[in-house]
Amino acid sequence: MPGRGQGTYRARMQLLTDQDRTVNQRLDAELEKVEGRFAAELISDLPCVNALVSHIEQYRGKMLRPRLVLVAAMACTDADEPLNDAHCVLATVVEMVHMATLVHDDILDDADVRRRGRTINDLEGNETAIMLGDFLISHAYHLCSSLSDPRISRTIADTTNTVCEGELLQLANRNNRQLDEQTYFEIIRRKTASLCGTCCWLAASLAGGDDEVADGLYEYGERVGVAFQIVDDLLDLVGLEDTVGKSLGRDLQKGKLTLPLIRHLMTAAEPARQQLADLLDRVPAGLDPDQVSAIRQLIIASGSVEYANDWASRLVEQAKTPLARLPDTPARGQLARIADTVLTRKS
Amino acid sequence: MPGRGQGTYRARMQLLTDQDRTVNQRLDAELEKVEGRFAAELISDLPCVNALVSHIEQYRGKMLRPRLVLVAAMACTDADEPLNDAHCVLATVVEMVHMATLVHDDILDDADVRRRGRTINDLEGNETAIMLGDFLISHAYHLCSSLSDPRISRTIADTTNTVCEGELLQLANRNNRQLDEQTYFEIIRRKTASLCGTCCWLAASLAGGDDEVADGLYEYGERVGVAFQIVDDLLDLVGLEDTVGKSLGRDLQKGKLTLPLIRHLMTAAEPARQQLADLLDRVPAGLDPDQVSAIRQLIIASGSVEYANDWASRLVEQAKTPLARLPDTPARGQLARIADTVLTRKS
Repeated sequence: MPGRGQGTYRARMQLLTDQDRTVNQRLDAELEKVEGRFAAELISDLPCVNALVSHIEQYRGKMLRPRLVLVAAMACTDADEPLNDAHCVLATVVEMVHMATLVHDDILDDADVRRRGRTINDLEGNETAIMLGDFLISHAYHLCSSLSDPRISRTIADTTNTVCEGELLQLANRNNRQLDEQTYFEIIRRKTASLCGTCCWLAASLAGGDDEVADGLYEYGERVGVAFQIVDDLLDLVGLEDTVGKSLGRDLQKGKLTLPLIRHLMTAAEPARQQLADLLDRVPAGLDPDQVSAIRQLIIASGSVEYANDWASRLVEQAKTPLARLPDTPARGQLARIADTVLTRKS
Repeated sequence: MPGRGQGTYRARMQLLTDQDRTVNQRLDAELEKVEGRFAAELISDLPCVNALVSHIEQYRGKMLRPRLVLVAAMACTDADEPLNDAHCVLATVVEMVHMATLVHDDILDDADVRRRGRTINDLEGNETAIMLGDFLISHAYHLCSSLSDPRISRTIADTTNTVCEGELLQLANRNNRQLDEQTYFEIIRRKTASLCGTCCWLAASLAGGDDEVADGLYEYGERVGVAFQIVDDLLDLVGLEDTVGKSLGRDLQKGKLTLPLIRHLMTAAEPARQQLADLLDRVPAGLDPDQVSAIRQLIIASGSVEYANDWASRLVEQAKTPLARLPDTPARGQLARIADTVLTRKS
């Protein structure tokens, strides 16, 4: 993936062994294939469709989900054996599903910027964004059904059912000041972590891994996904817009309560607890930058941001536990490193 | 389907032979199974999801697409032979795909009423409507992938790719006063007719029909679908809100040019042509009821509404031609009658 974060990448590479480097090179080569497959699947005879697709290809980030597929597959395959083509298809499918959710999420969040570019809803209106998201999800299933085993399609669709339920549960809890941690975790388990778990589980199954290994990888992926979402929610609250590269504070403005806010409302001492409650009362009328900043200060001061960060760290450690069921290979080490990057990411 | 249009149904039944009645009874029994399967597929452990699903089940109309699947299947099967379970699954899948497009279309059209009930976007906001549509489409693919032959999922996804392209092409042509008939037909072929064609084609394939029969049924379904959309567009322009049971005039307000408008702009004598053009210039600012009424009068007076109706009638006749490839059975007669109902529907 030339051009993206080369500096950090090189620094990291110096800490790695030759074997680790081989895994990274294989991964980069596979991710390039995924990008090609992604573009090939979406080509249309309609120029207006191709223009939209080119635009959203700029949203591509670190490709966490395809990475999970490919590295989990490598961890279940002998080092010299190439990945089978189904893994590349699966990695492309999960990236496409993810891209569809980004396009629809940007409408839900009224977001105008993503990866420093304008969102489709901002550029072309909500209608086009809805249909482009539908087009992406349709193509994800289309590509997935090119695999001969219908269980893959079934598992992917089962997962997207769960993802949509998570989003609907979140919407049903907008402005719900009583939202508890358990429901918050249930929302993010469904909307984010289920797909990460499925990436790893299907990769193992396709590589012929036994049930114990596949289930262990599901646990790994799910925990990484929950940690990822906690950090994502934190970035929206306390991140820097220029670094994150997308509209921030959207969760607050949309009445979406995330972990630090829930924690603060449940445990902070008065008057800090009531101060946050009063500020959240103003959400329906729209928060001004000073109010957003006051919310930030409150949740940092009460230790609620730290609490959420601790949760993410603990989950990342727990994610690594089931990796012990895998043979000790550089790919397994790479899975552990992917988990770690969830905590250090700034965007 | 008790309770819906019983009067008309009885009058029609009197014109039928005993054999025809048997086909109708089989169809009603199969449609009931489809309703059950639809509900069973969508059950969630989340009450908020179940409440949304119950609401949209009230949108159910004449079930054109499941009807096409089931009657096409009967037309390819011996009269005594029951339909196989895959047909019921397929009929449920296409109804679910259709329901998803209704939920998303209502957002695109800013519609507040459907089948005399409030739309999800009006009731719960656009965000929930987007996610509910995604949930429905996800379950459609999930159910479809329960079929052992992955080609069914592949064909359904290929068709939804085309449906989305049709919608995107339509959106790209909003307020395009130069839209020509050819592009209009291309839009509705993709967004509506492709799914109707696929219903018939897959039904024939699943029943073991040969390629010639399946392709003939595709042509039939596609033409029925184009005629259906022309009439749907006409109802939006010149129908009666109380009869149609949904928000009308949405196409106009959304800058969507349909056949009578295109015809009028291309061929009407001056000053009527310019009068319509001037009225359409006001669309971005919003049309008042008098302006909508003036548009109606113009397109009726210029014969453009009749022109669109003639197109629909011709397509219905053309749809029946490939039915000659099928054995002369009551189910074949029923297919011809389904085509006819497209022209007489008032909602």
